This record gives sequence, C-alpha cells and structure tokens, in this order.
Amino acid sequence: MPPRNALYAQSGGVTSVVNASACGVIEAARQHPDQIGHLYAGRYGIMGALREDMIDTGQESVEAIAALRYTPAGAFGSCRYRLKGLEENRLEYERLIEVFAAHDIGYFFYNGGGDSQDTALKVSQLGEHMGYPITCLGIPKTVDNDLAGTDCCPGFGSAAKYVAVSTREAGLDVRSMAESSTKLFVLEVMGRHAGWIAAAAGLAAQEPGDPPHVILLPEVPFDRDAFLATVKNSVERFGYCVVVVSEGLRDEQGRFISDAGSQDAFGHTQLGGVGPVIARMCTDALGYKHHCAVADYLQRAARHIASKTDVDQAYAVGRAAVEMALAGRNAVMPTIVRMADHPYQWDIGEVPLSEVANVERKMPASYIRQDGFGITEAGRRYLQPLIQGEDYPPYRDGLPEYVTLKNVSVPKRLGTPFDI
Amino acid sequence: MPPRNALYAQSGGVTSVVNASACGVIEAARQHPDQIGHLYAGRYGIMGALREDMIDTGQESVEAIAALRYTPAGAFGSCRYRLKGLEENRLEYERLIEVFAAHDIGYFFYNGGGDSQDTALKVSQLGEHMGYPITCLGIPKTVDNDLAGTDCCPGFGSAAKYVAVSTREAGLDVRSMAESSTKLFVLEVMGRHAGWIAAAAGLAAQEPGDPPHVILLPEVPFDRDAFLATVKNSVERFGYCVVVVSEGLRDEQGRFISDAGSQDAFGHTQLGGVGPVIARMCTDALGYKHHCAVADYLQRAARHIASKTDVDQAYAVGRAAVEMALAGRNAVMPTIVRMADHPYQWDIGEVPLSEVANVERKMPASYIRQDGFGITEAGRRYLQPLIQGEDYPPYRDGLPEYVTLKNVSVPKRLGTPFDI
Repeated sequence: MPPRNALYAQSGGVTSVVNASACGVIEAARQHPDQIGHLYAGRYGIMGALREDMIDTGQESVEAIAALRYTPAGAFGSCRYRLKGLEENRLEYERLIEVFAAHDIGYFFYNGGGDSQDTALKVSQLGEHMGYPITCLGIPKTVDNDLAGTDCCPGFGSAAKYVAVSTREAGLDVRSMAESSTKLFVLEVMGRHAGWIAAAAGLAAQEPGDPPHVILLPEVPFDRDAFLATVKNSVERFGYCVVVVSEGLRDEQGRFISDAGSQDAFGHTQLGGVGPVIARMCTDALGYKHHCAVADYLQRAARHIASKTDVDQAYAVGRAAVEMALAGRNAVMPTIVRMADHPYQWDIGEVPLSEVANVERKMPASYIRQDGFGITEAGRRYLQPLIQGEDYPPYRDGLPEYVTLKNVSVPKRLGTPFDI
Repeated sequence: MPPRNALYAQSGGVTSVVNASACGVIEAARQHPDQIGHLYAGRYGIMGALREDMIDTGQESVEAIAALRYTPAGAFGSCRYRLKGLEENRLEYERLIEVFAAHDIGYFFYNGGGDSQDTALKVSQLGEHMGYPITCLGIPKTVDNDLAGTDCCPGFGSAAKYVAVSTREAGLDVRSMAESSTKLFVLEVMGRHAGWIAAAAGLAAQEPGDPPHVILLPEVPFDRDAFLATVKNSVERFGYCVVVVSEGLRDEQGRFISDAGSQDAFGHTQLGGVGPVIARMCTDALGYKHHCAVADYLQRAARHIASKTDVDQAYAVGRAAVEMALAGRNAVMPTIVRMADHPYQWDIGEVPLSEVANVERKMPASYIRQDGFGITEAGRRYLQPLIQGEDYPPYRDGLPEYVTLKNVSVPKRLGTPFDI
C-alpha cells in the first residue's frame, strides 16, 4: 500500500514566521517519502480543502522551500474561516471527508491560533465521528501569544522584537525633538484581548526614565485620570513621553476605547484607532504636541527584523508536528517548553488540541506593574529571550528577497463545487 | 594664537542617519586639532547657541563617537526653531555673536533641511553684516529629500528603504489574507509637499501586479473617482490592493485630504490622518475590508533597516563640511553628486547656501506615471541606488545597542539668560 498523503494549511492572521513552520513541515515530510506520499497545501487554508483547491508542494524546489524560512506571510494563502460544530454544519465535515478521501489525505497539519486549533480539533474528530481515519496535528501560530499550553507562540517573538525595536528608535527621535516640538509619541500595536505585544515594548527600556513611559494593556481597565497624570509626570521629569497602546484597550465597563466597530469573520470586533484617540486625549487635556504611529500589519509582517529565537521555534514546531504524526500522535499540538530563562533554553513539548481550542491565555498579573502602566521584572524575564537574536533575510537591490512559490494546483478528482 | 572653536548643531526633524553626519563632523574635526580647538554641539540645535547651552563633544570617547554612526535621531537634541531675518530680529543675531565671541566659535556647522539651511545662511551673514568672522557650513539632512542643489538628501534613503521594505512585507501579508479577509491595505507615509518617500514604496514591486498598486503623491491632485476605480481594478485583477499615501495629499483646490489642522513651529500644518481617511473612503464606496498603518516617526527613526548608501553619504557630508571649512569654503553646503546610476557611483560636491535656503525641490514629473498612481522607470532608476545596502547596528539582548552620549555642558561664560 502506498503511503498516504498529507495536507498542510495556514489559518488566521499571518505572521512573519508562519512560513518557517511551513518550511519545517515540508522539509520534515520530504525526509519520510515512505510514510508521507504527497504533501499538499490548502490554498487559503481550510477553504482550499473544502473547495478541493490544493497546492502540490512537491512541485517546489529545495531552494524555494528553504526560502520559506525567511519569507513572511502565508505562502499558500491563509483564511479567516472557522468550521462550525459537527451538529451545526455536518455538510462541511462531509465535504472535508469527501475531499480527503478523494486525495487519500491521511495527515492534516493546521497552522494557526486558538480559533484554528478548534478547527483542527474538529477535523481530528472526523476520525471518531464519521469513520474517516485521519491524523490531525495543530501547529501553533499567532502574534498575539495567547495560545494555551505553550510557553510562547511562534510569530509573537518577532512582533515583540519589532515593537521593542521601534519603541526604542522612536523614543530616541522624540527625546531629540521634545524641547521645541513633539513631546508625546503614541504607538498603537496589536492585541485584541491580551497585551503581550504592547508589554514587549517594555523591553526597549534599559534605564529608569527610558521609553516607553506608559504601556496601556487590555488587561488593565483604562483609567483616564491616572493615565493623564502619568503622561504629565513623564513629560515633566524626562521632557517627553512615549506611550504604547494595545488596540484592545477597554474602559471599566469593558468597552473598547477605539471608535471603530466593524467585525471580522469570527465575529470579533475589528479594532484600530485607539492610538489617535489616546494621543488626542493627551493633547486636549495637557496641550502637548503629539505624533502617533499605527504599526498594524507592519508588526506582524516585518520579517526583516524577526527574532532568531522565534524563527527557530517556528521551524521547530513545523518539523515536530510531522515527526509526532509519524510517531502516531494525534489531536495534539507541539508546544514550546521553557527550560531556563537565562541563558534561555527551550524544548518541544505537546498538548492535546482539546486543551488549546478556544482557550485564550492572558498575561499573568505578575507581569504587570502595580500601577498598570508597565511590566515587572518577571514580565521582562519572560519576554526577553523571545526577541533574542537576529535572522536577516537575503537582500537584492536593497530589498529582502522573499520567495513566491509556484503554487501548482493538485488536479481535482471531485470537481464538484462547494459554496463556502 | 590657539585654533578657534567650532559649533555643530542638529536642526529640524531628525533622521536615522543624522548622527552619522555628526560622527563625520566630529571624527574629521578631531583629526585637525591644530585648526579646530574645541568642537561643541548645540543642545537642541540653534537654541543651544542662543541659550549658551552647549555640549563639549571632546568629553566623549572615540568609541561613543563611532557609535553615532549607527545611532538614530539627534544625539545632542534638535529643534524646530527658525531665526527670523536680520531686520526682524536683530536681538537674536546679537545674542549669537555674543555667545560665539565668548566661546571663540569660528566655525558653525548646521545640520538640517531647507529651513535650517536658511538659518545657516543667516548665520553666515553675521560675518558681513555684524562684523563677526565666522565660517558657516550647512550639512544636508531631511527624510523629505526636498533640498535643492543635491542629488539626494541624507536621511531620505533610509526612510525610503523602510517604506519599500514595509510595503513589500505588508503586501505579502495582505495577499495571503485577501481571499477571506482584508482586501485593502493603506500605508501612510511622510512627505508634506514632495512625494519622494511615497514614491520609494514603488521600489517594492518587481513584477506587474506586485504591490504597491496605488501611490498617492502630493504632486498629483487627488482624483477620488480615478483612485477608487484603480483600487477596484486592482482588487478584481489581483485579489487585493496596497495603497501608499503621502501625508501631504491634496485635492484639486490644494486642500489637504487629511483632517488634522494644527501647526508646527514653522507655521506648517501638522498633518496626519490621510491614511485612515483614504481607507475608509474605499470601504464606504467599494465595501472592501481594510487595514491601515501609519508609519509616522518609525520611518525616520528605523536605523535597524537603514540604507548603507544613506549612512555612507550622511557620514561623508559631515566629514566634507569640516574639510571644506578648513579649506576656506564658507556659506556652502556639501552635496551628493550622482556620477552613475548603475552601478551607482556618487561623489561630494558643494552648493552655496543661498541656493538651498527655503527652496523646496519637488519630484520631476518624469518620475510620475502617466496615471499619477505610480513611478516610472526613470523614477525607479533614480530611487533604487539610494536604498542599496544594509548597515545593521550591533545588538544586545535582542535590541540595537544605540549610544547615549554623556553630553557634558560647556561651562557658561556669559551666564545671562536669553528668552526664546
């Protein structure tokens, strides 16, 4: 009997290192042609599976696959699409089985965050509930660092490094100008419910008085008066103030401080706008001239300043998922296990998908400073290793030379359309 | 007679390489102790001179000065402060002469943009009009690349590289997600009157269809209908659209598209906000989900992704200013002269300050595509060499190790206050 095929798919918001995980998956799979036949990738994640729109990674050269390690975003396309429960939408699962069976998919690797691990879990249940044998592994990925069961999430370290580096650099800028111009700089960063990315900005500070002077976290209800007093104090003591604010900042009633209100496919409110709101608030109340940057996608796409630790871990969890699958593990996700803070040591562990799906890990209170506007030494100890090391992509003509794959389609065997 | 002293000052918005110019000035001056006694720096630019608040750069180690080459922002502080005309405010000039005389300042090096070169010119006129002998050199600096008389401006190449790299990276992100999520990404960049920085984003594209799909320049009056049609066409053809917009985008009547309205110390309208305005406009008209990043200070502070060409040129104009001054040149500014496009070759030239002061260089029309939404091959040929090469700072614990100088004050000899 020939070996069964595998399907790899990327899901949710992409990161600067999710392709490093893809690289790990593909390189590991290629080492086991006796156990894994073709390795396909879903075009736009699970949507590609439902539509029978798959990519044959076997058509890509060794060099192209190696280049995934330093190419940001999702090389096969990602999606924001979540499978409903088996009871709610049996049709989707029947379709998945139909596609999997048609292409003899025996392994499914789903690379995503908490919502995506929920999808991976549901797919793994196909085996039990619908009599289709499949080995299903999750691969962690999210800049939000909010996955349960793992010490950190691939994608986060690089976003954290981007934000810490940017905070240090912009802080020097504002310090230079504050005497006669801008006194307040606000940097808005991602983080819907957990303030991990904003917290990482705290690493930029080395000495007391160094920026960021205020970090606004979703974990801490926004206290306008205390915030303004802290900004004022910073300007009076240091001449300027750098604020890093998480998009998910909320007031005492749990309402977002930002004024945007549209929703994404998961029903989450699409945020943005809290940075300008906060900056204007300071100028109105205190009169300081402000500037405001909104990092948005730049923070999760900035492969040029990726953390080497993060790249290594992203690659490692990709490899590990394949090795675990071949070792007979199912419905689990490889994790990062911290062995030591300093010097930092880590290893690969695993967690059942059932413990990851839909669980959102918040920052421990012990990482948040008493006043709510910064991180503690414990927080710094946790965060610091994750941004360690540089891993520069190759450049040509002054720009990073990222790979675009051929993405050759796997011939359809069903050919029946499926509306999503 | 002992050699006379020199004063160096940084002015206007800082850049990621203005300290490389400072490094060039200081290292060159240190090689000529027979001709330049002490090299002082104005604390916060010309304000430091007026306030008799100067820094003794002689107190800094060789290593600290060398580290300026890779440290962004203004190590001595910069300012937004412009000397009025001699007739309008004779007091300021009398004060400058008083301070210069008290400290035997014979050389003045002013590192800034067009407004600052105007100040440098006025200071140089002190010699003629008020009988104080001083050698005055401008040193070019501006991310806006709008200085006359030079092929390019130190500071611009690195901002251009940041924007081109960020556009390429964010473009990959949007392409990954567009099928089921964000279809439009808008990046707002600096450029009050000249679209150089936005134009540089065009370098990110290699193949037809690559992002950016639309560049909105201040040189081209905003045509809403043509813009929306181009966005729609891009989404329909490529699945997504990346727009890079200059903060100075204006309508047919010359009104800024952004909605902000405060003014800076030079009376320029302080911009910001055009990115979100443009993004919302597309969503309202076309229904696409959008994301928007505002690079703001990050683009001019991002020393971590500086252009090596730019760093080399910034350093070179600093050195050249000192060498020109010692060769008896006065009231001039060293410039970058382009010798060849490919392979790129450049040399140092000079231009009289009178030809630089208050002149704003716009982008040649030949660099702007017929439809107004992109750059031509000529534009690409001009821009490409300026982002060439990487020049990474050293890192410690995952962060660039930038230097903070001791900035020891020169003892005051006058001690009289001066209100600015």
